[in-house]
Amino acid sequence: MKLPQISSHRRVACVSLSGVSEPPRGLVQEKMTENAVFSQNKVLTIDTMNPNVKNVEYAVRGPIVQRAVQIEKELREGVKKPFTEVIKANIGDAHAMGQQPITFFRQVLALCSYPELLKDNMFPEDAKSRARRILQACGGSSLGAYSASQGIDCVRQDVARYIERRDGGVPCDPDNVYLTSGASDGIVTMLKLLVCGEGASKTGVMISIPQYPLYSAALAELGAVQVNYYLNEEKCWSMDLSELERSLAEARKHCNPKVLCIINPGNPTGQVQSRQCIEDVIRFAAKEHLFLMADEVYQDNVYAEGCQFHSFKKVLFELGPQYSNTVELVSFHSTSKCYMGECGFRGGYMEVINMDPEVKAQLIKLVSVRLCPAVPGQALMDLVVNSPQPGEPSYTTFMKERTTTLSLLAEKAKLTEEILNTVPGITCNPVQGAMYSFPNISLPQKAIKEAKALGQAPDMFYCMKMLEETGICLVPGSGFGQKDGTYHFRMTILPPTDKLKLLLAKVKEFHQKFTRQYS
Amino acid sequence: MKLPQISSHRRVACVSLSGVSEPPRGLVQEKMTENAVFSQNKVLTIDTMNPNVKNVEYAVRGPIVQRAVQIEKELREGVKKPFTEVIKANIGDAHAMGQQPITFFRQVLALCSYPELLKDNMFPEDAKSRARRILQACGGSSLGAYSASQGIDCVRQDVARYIERRDGGVPCDPDNVYLTSGASDGIVTMLKLLVCGEGASKTGVMISIPQYPLYSAALAELGAVQVNYYLNEEKCWSMDLSELERSLAEARKHCNPKVLCIINPGNPTGQVQSRQCIEDVIRFAAKEHLFLMADEVYQDNVYAEGCQFHSFKKVLFELGPQYSNTVELVSFHSTSKCYMGECGFRGGYMEVINMDPEVKAQLIKLVSVRLCPAVPGQALMDLVVNSPQPGEPSYTTFMKERTTTLSLLAEKAKLTEEILNTVPGITCNPVQGAMYSFPNISLPQKAIKEAKALGQAPDMFYCMKMLEETGICLVPGSGFGQKDGTYHFRMTILPPTDKLKLLLAKVKEFHQKFTRQYS
Repeated sequence: MKLPQISSHRRVACVSLSGVSEPPRGLVQEKMTENAVFSQNKVLTIDTMNPNVKNVEYAVRGPIVQRAVQIEKELREGVKKPFTEVIKANIGDAHAMGQQPITFFRQVLALCSYPELLKDNMFPEDAKSRARRILQACGGSSLGAYSASQGIDCVRQDVARYIERRDGGVPCDPDNVYLTSGASDGIVTMLKLLVCGEGASKTGVMISIPQYPLYSAALAELGAVQVNYYLNEEKCWSMDLSELERSLAEARKHCNPKVLCIINPGNPTGQVQSRQCIEDVIRFAAKEHLFLMADEVYQDNVYAEGCQFHSFKKVLFELGPQYSNTVELVSFHSTSKCYMGECGFRGGYMEVINMDPEVKAQLIKLVSVRLCPAVPGQALMDLVVNSPQPGEPSYTTFMKERTTTLSLLAEKAKLTEEILNTVPGITCNPVQGAMYSFPNISLPQKAIKEAKALGQAPDMFYCMKMLEETGICLVPGSGFGQKDGTYHFRMTILPPTDKLKLLLAKVKEFHQKFTRQYS
Repeated sequence: MKLPQISSHRRVACVSLSGVSEPPRGLVQEKMTENAVFSQNKVLTIDTMNPNVKNVEYAVRGPIVQRAVQIEKELREGVKKPFTEVIKANIGDAHAMGQQPITFFRQVLALCSYPELLKDNMFPEDAKSRARRILQACGGSSLGAYSASQGIDCVRQDVARYIERRDGGVPCDPDNVYLTSGASDGIVTMLKLLVCGEGASKTGVMISIPQYPLYSAALAELGAVQVNYYLNEEKCWSMDLSELERSLAEARKHCNPKVLCIINPGNPTGQVQSRQCIEDVIRFAAKEHLFLMADEVYQDNVYAEGCQFHSFKKVLFELGPQYSNTVELVSFHSTSKCYMGECGFRGGYMEVINMDPEVKAQLIKLVSVRLCPAVPGQALMDLVVNSPQPGEPSYTTFMKERTTTLSLLAEKAKLTEEILNTVPGITCNPVQGAMYSFPNISLPQKAIKEAKALGQAPDMFYCMKMLEETGICLVPGSGFGQKDGTYHFRMTILPPTDKLKLLLAKVKEFHQKFTRQYS
């Protein structure tokens, strides 16, 4: 049997990635040799592993975040730094940033976890009745039983009713609803069904640039062709029909573009699409025979005046049967964002529209291999789509908590945009929705040159320096994609207002210092 | 653009798969035409979808289970049947079969879900302290925050200590532990890393026959070559070294076999491997340069006298540094089986041994794309590996519950074997461990002929008939793989003792009737 060769690019990448501080140089050398000797005999090495996995990149948890974890450890160990804490504004992780869970949701989850509590008088009646309803739908009345692979029946029914209310009565069939482990799971599952072929007939998937890197990562893993269309930064990151046309025509020269992905409200852009734009996109998909994937996980996160969330499905149906009977659409939602921020539960759903019945059977088969999404996440998804109603004992508290969280986010969205725009060299589009700002940063030529000499993307160089000097953890724009020669970072608006102000002041100070240093 | 063609094998497979009762024949015809017309214009059809997904099969939730769901619905609607309930013995879903959750686990989960309960006096102190410890390790002290992609640090540390205790002190590094969404998730992730190549250099993965169909399904999805090695039914489903050698030599003619998968205790066989056998397998893997994947999710489910669970890792280390420093091994565990049976939480972990550090970095990157396993499942995994200790207030109840569940399972394992072996034409190996019996069934030639005429596997024909006539839902052996010309079914031992007795009596009666009918 052929033994794997030691590649020339061998390196001790694990040292930084495992979050362990780098050992002294001598040790690294020694370890490298040792690894090389071992690796020569290993079955699974960087050279023998699946090359598609090697091509995967995921900036949101990439090298900068690993370095942040390292720095946190150094701080705990007493290493002196020009700051006392790392502020992570790299990921949309609301609870980690101090956002409080919705009381009602957690009460029901506790009741479902330990049904003995149903006997107690400490919980409101509506929480108890929700818990009973969920448990009745579980095998053996336990969250510990597998559910149907597509998700618990009554949860899918509740999701369907939620969608109908949201979309002003457009009908939703629970059979078209699939519960997922967060939206990511649904997106990857759909791409798995869609991607095939080799060479010029390989599936092309159109994604926005900038994009959420789950898309590029999943496409790399599946070996699909990533087809970029650029959002218009000058017009507040909106979608241009002409750009879609350009991108598609270009792609058709070398692959088979079949899918168009949209994130609305936008991640990382914070853009909220107009009804007109969505209409244009649907007409475009119909005309060009594209499968639409609409990532709508931020559907409650709309802050800017005059902006409103329009679901792709609603607009599709308003365009009439010519479209609503033909255009294939899947929409994704999740428990992780909006006012819930319950990322850790990995709850989510997708609704498929106009999917071929035979493909639906294949989809059900595919999801059944993984048995089912985690049941506590399904229960939570149910609560989100079946929240307390007027007249129920938990309604007032629920509404207060929900409104407070969403108003705070709106306030922080405004604050972020305003303060960033006071910095010379930073230009920030309005954060109309979602949880992120994605400002454009001017970098001096000298900095760009130095970054390139280090083999780093210039905005990675910038963000890494900011992390080392201020303790602020942002994600460089290069991780999301951007027009050549432009630079950005993504920053969440999630830190508590006081900390956010401090963070923005530090960013301002750092940017000015950085600009002076490299001018 | 080329429009997808209507394939000759077009069929309305969705009708049965969606669990909806079949509409009258005329309607089906009409629907077929309608579907065909629609499909012609669809982007995603059975002909344009990923062919690897099409090749996936998953018997445990296959057509027979879908028919069972249908029958349940018919019963609810008042359709008369020769039975009043469907008994599902098709899947290892303990809670659905009435097994009670461990009180301590659920108390802690309730406390973690709704930390207000920590203020109450209704929970034992050890439950509270476990909950506090888990919450402290969560971002914002909330189960709703994302965890590190590899899993919560302190949970991985607890897993490492558990493994060390289990393996008599063999060291375990928490950095080698990855939390997963059930064992399935870990298995698929590892296969993703391992599978690559085309043609004769395509990765071959050796799996036992019979196997748990997750393996064949994952291999089909990844486009890997499934390399079968047969377990020895005559020797209680044990592994034969000569068979491994035969299988490997055969495979090397047409692919690149790199991985050897073992399930111990066995699913569906119920076999528990001897220490000697494990030693042989490790030596074989070392000699033949194979990556070992040990599925050890039934590690507490050992019932037969003289049988004992030996972890692959422990045996590996006992073989000395020549093996323990070189053989690449990954072991999987889960919250779904053993005495816990908490399938719905999708908790699990894997430990990698001797993995190339560069590949580990790739693995961390790969798992980070999906952000993290569901946090409630991680918390539950923690409780399993860090259960109440002597002296703690919950210890007595915990031990009582654990012991009761395991003794009941042992009793039912014995009962199943004994009763099945009283049936002429059924031969059942001892259920030494796990949760299944996999008896050999003699089918009359006439039945085999009739099945083949219907295009069905003979044991599928048998099981489907049993379901229709008795309401008992088993999985045909063909879904797990079996030697040509032999027939089996898999039956869980999970129903409550009384129901299990009833079920076994019905199986006996059915088998005799079936044999008479087709003789």
